[in-house]
Amino acid sequence: MANIAIYPGTFDPVTNGHIDLIMRARKIFPDLIVAVAHNPSKHTMFSSKERVDMLKKSVKGVKVEEFKGLVVDYARRKKAKVLIRGLRMISDFEYEFQMALTNRKLAKDIETFFLMPHESYSFLSSKLIKEAAYLGANISCFVPALVEKALKNKLNEDKYKPDPA
Amino acid sequence: MANIAIYPGTFDPVTNGHIDLIMRARKIFPDLIVAVAHNPSKHTMFSSKERVDMLKKSVKGVKVEEFKGLVVDYARRKKAKVLIRGLRMISDFEYEFQMALTNRKLAKDIETFFLMPHESYSFLSSKLIKEAAYLGANISCFVPALVEKALKNKLNEDKYKPDPA
Amino acid sequence: MANIAIYPGTFDPVTNGHIDLIMRARKIFPDLIVAVAHNPSKHTMFSSKERVDMLKKSVKGVKVEEFKGLVVDYARRKKAKVLIRGLRMISDFEYEFQMALTNRKLAKDIETFFLMPHESYSFLSSKLIKEAAYLGANISCFVPALVEKALKNKLNEDKYKPDPA
Amino acid sequence: MANIAIYPGTFDPVTNGHIDLIMRARKIFPDLIVAVAHNPSKHTMFSSKERVDMLKKSVKGVKVEEFKGLVVDYARRKKAKVLIRGLRMISDFEYEFQMALTNRKLAKDIETFFLMPHESYSFLSSKLIKEAAYLGANISCFVPALVEKALKNKLNEDKYKPDPA
Amino acid sequence: MANIAIYPGTFDPVTNGHIDLIMRARKIFPDLIVAVAHNPSKHTMFSSKERVDMLKKSVKGVKVEEFKGLVVDYARRKKAKVLIRGLRMISDFEYEFQMALTNRKLAKDIETFFLMPHESYSFLSSKLIKEAAYLGANISCFVPALVEKALKNKLNEDKYKPDPA
Amino acid sequence: MANIAIYPGTFDPVTNGHIDLIMRARKIFPDLIVAVAHNPSKHTMFSSKERVDMLKKSVKGVKVEEFKGLVVDYARRKKAKVLIRGLRMISDFEYEFQMALTNRKLAKDIETFFLMPHESYSFLSSKLIKEAAYLGANISCFVPALVEKALKNKLNEDKYKPDPA
Repeated sequence: MANIAIYPGTFDPVTNGHIDLIMRARKIFPDLIVAVAHNPSKHTMFSSKERVDMLKKSVKGVKVEEFKGLVVDYARRKKAKVLIRGLRMISDFEYEFQMALTNRKLAKDIETFFLMPHESYSFLSSKLIKEAAYLGANISCFVPALVEKALKNKLNEDKYKPDPA
Repeated sequence: MANIAIYPGTFDPVTNGHIDLIMRARKIFPDLIVAVAHNPSKHTMFSSKERVDMLKKSVKGVKVEEFKGLVVDYARRKKAKVLIRGLRMISDFEYEFQMALTNRKLAKDIETFFLMPHESYSFLSSKLIKEAAYLGANISCFVPALVEKALKNKLNEDKYKPDPA
Repeated sequence: MANIAIYPGTFDPVTNGHIDLIMRARKIFPDLIVAVAHNPSKHTMFSSKERVDMLKKSVKGVKVEEFKGLVVDYARRKKAKVLIRGLRMISDFEYEFQMALTNRKLAKDIETFFLMPHESYSFLSSKLIKEAAYLGANISCFVPALVEKALKNKLNEDKYKPDPA
Repeated sequence: MANIAIYPGTFDPVTNGHIDLIMRARKIFPDLIVAVAHNPSKHTMFSSKERVDMLKKSVKGVKVEEFKGLVVDYARRKKAKVLIRGLRMISDFEYEFQMALTNRKLAKDIETFFLMPHESYSFLSSKLIKEAAYLGANISCFVPALVEKALKNKLNEDKYKPDPA
Repeated sequence: MANIAIYPGTFDPVTNGHIDLIMRARKIFPDLIVAVAHNPSKHTMFSSKERVDMLKKSVKGVKVEEFKGLVVDYARRKKAKVLIRGLRMISDFEYEFQMALTNRKLAKDIETFFLMPHESYSFLSSKLIKEAAYLGANISCFVPALVEKALKNKLNEDKYKPDPA
Repeated sequence: MANIAIYPGTFDPVTNGHIDLIMRARKIFPDLIVAVAHNPSKHTMFSSKERVDMLKKSVKGVKVEEFKGLVVDYARRKKAKVLIRGLRMISDFEYEFQMALTNRKLAKDIETFFLMPHESYSFLSSKLIKEAAYLGANISCFVPALVEKALKNKLNEDKYKPDPA
């Protein structure tokens, strides 16, 4: 029986880097589920419904779902034994290390596998893209066209402010 | 005369990693004071009184105190020449480096000593535990039982939201 | 024709580390412009006008300007082909890497050059200084005298709270 | 059809950390091949035949083979599309990043997946164990008993010296 | 008067990453000298004469010279006030930090500026290329054609072995 | 009873950074022993006798000894419960982490404490100093005068070559 794999994330919004990772993971794990975190404590630019919708339109044929609560609980409900995460940079590394080890304590039977995106996307992050768009940058080489449009619409609503940091 | 050492922190809440460090430091510095920072500008889940209280109940026989203001000023009042800090990961390292060098500028006579917790706790952080508990995780292997209970009570009050990040 | 170089930043407030970097950069790029970011989404302690003013008073003879929007758009308006940034620590490194590569995608003709401050300033940051001042530290060895005074005045207004985290 | 995965390495000698990783990888990729590099330019303590032999005796039921030349060429001969590598620390990270991106340039159809060993093994390395054994340490908690014995025999032959570093 | 800049290195052999950096530096510092270190204590694959020769043929119109001894002494003889170095990764960073601060102690008037290569080259190193070529890899996308040919010739002489490590 | 502390190292040769650390450690642990590793598998520039001698002459009143074998075995013979190590940079950090955790496995009762040298010495290393001296640098600001002289003598013997890498 094939392994079911889950690629969890916030995807606020999906970038070309996420899409690159989905394509790579799907070659090895055809039963991949892209799982969009609905975390009420985290302020996101797009609602979880919008984020799921953009993912579905950006990557044809991939299964996209929203989930709440712990990712390992969601994975068990889906009978998945594999979590997929991207590693771009050192700063990712320690956070991901923490998460993977914590998830292992919570669920011994689920293993996290890390993949590296294409080096063209190693510096991409949803946060950076939102900031750049907010400051007026042309972001067409970082996200799918439909995401670029959605971002512009959000920014025109004039309620959005990038997170401090 | 024995050296008085201070282990300052926020301890919001105390974890098994903090306790491991206290036990290690106390073997070398029996006159250890665990110093709980009361910083009005920092939003904490537990009040400084609650944090002191949980520490006292978690580690029998250790001196626990609240302090306000600069840790080096507090250390001087206590006649302590040693600050103890834990180093878990690279990301700790640079922040701790900054703090230690700044404290050294402010107080030449006080030295910071770093200790490593047991590797089982190298990925533990109070922040991660609060997030995991918020999402419904069983955190009994990360904190003392009384802290687990206090965390559940706080979360049931339904006012707590994890910090964004 | 000489190269015009831009040293962009928030400078909230300027520190001795910034000044050290300005002096180094100016030796190689005499037409240096120190560019103070006016970013309405970022909460700063000092207004952009105050930050420009403190810089002008701290480094005699250097050109200081405020800018809005993307730094590469500002650089093009100034006909600058060089951005100057300081690298103190590893944690700077990855953020700066991201920014430099993103800026390069947005403007192929502009190059970012990195400089290291004097090692005495390698642990200095505006954020740390504000926190230390807030807690009552003597910060006279970290910032120019006029900045120290301005910081004290702001803190006495009692509206300032350091950013969480 | 199941994915064939390859876990390449020098294994000079196999440690408990390697074994932990093999067990984790095998749960997801039952057709795992542990591939022992025979690199004539690298000085090893044990011959490739000895290293294969120790692995076979340490992990029952896993396929162990020796390979020469590029790992991606070997993977293609084996019709494997997955390389498995362990990530313990930051210093691993950059080397592994380099190798994974280089391998990807050489073979677009082969993907590297990274796994983290149990945190008890995060500080283990074959090199450190050889040095510790050379200096007289009891290494029974770091390697299988048969490896401990083989190491002692090698050291008694008195020809071995740890690599400089 | 224009600034004379020096880009020192071993270039054993020159890679596409080095060439990318030379092109970027030359746009800002037209009087760039690529300086090939002749260090008798360092074992190199190619002689300093061969390394100078490959650089000259790979980048038309750039000044290439061999130097011996300290780079800051060489820079002074050339009346250069700028050293250029590439930063690819964290592991570069600390070594470069050490070198830049040491050079500054030895020569206060010379400043090191860091540049980032194109992200396609962020994982390239001369060492990795030599190892890959030794193991039979096609390295045509990493180095100029003439370097690829020179590498093959060296390897056919059958005396070369990659450095251990 | 006071704690006996050991500061182990190769000290090939002692630098101003080592001396800074000895002075800091001694204020807290007056019964400090500086322990010079005699490791026959490591090629050193100076013999262990020479290294002990230079340390004794450089820091008056400190106890300096040579040791062989594992540092934890030596510490036990000395009834020391504290090992002191310096942390300068990230790259130190992971190596020191490995060593400290390995030593803890070998000897539960001995704890490693880390100290940071003065920031002026954060980039100093014995290896760098030997290389710089070999290339003709004036190293008088990095080492005591007697070490500078000893280094020059060694280099004039013309047998010394810096380690590759």
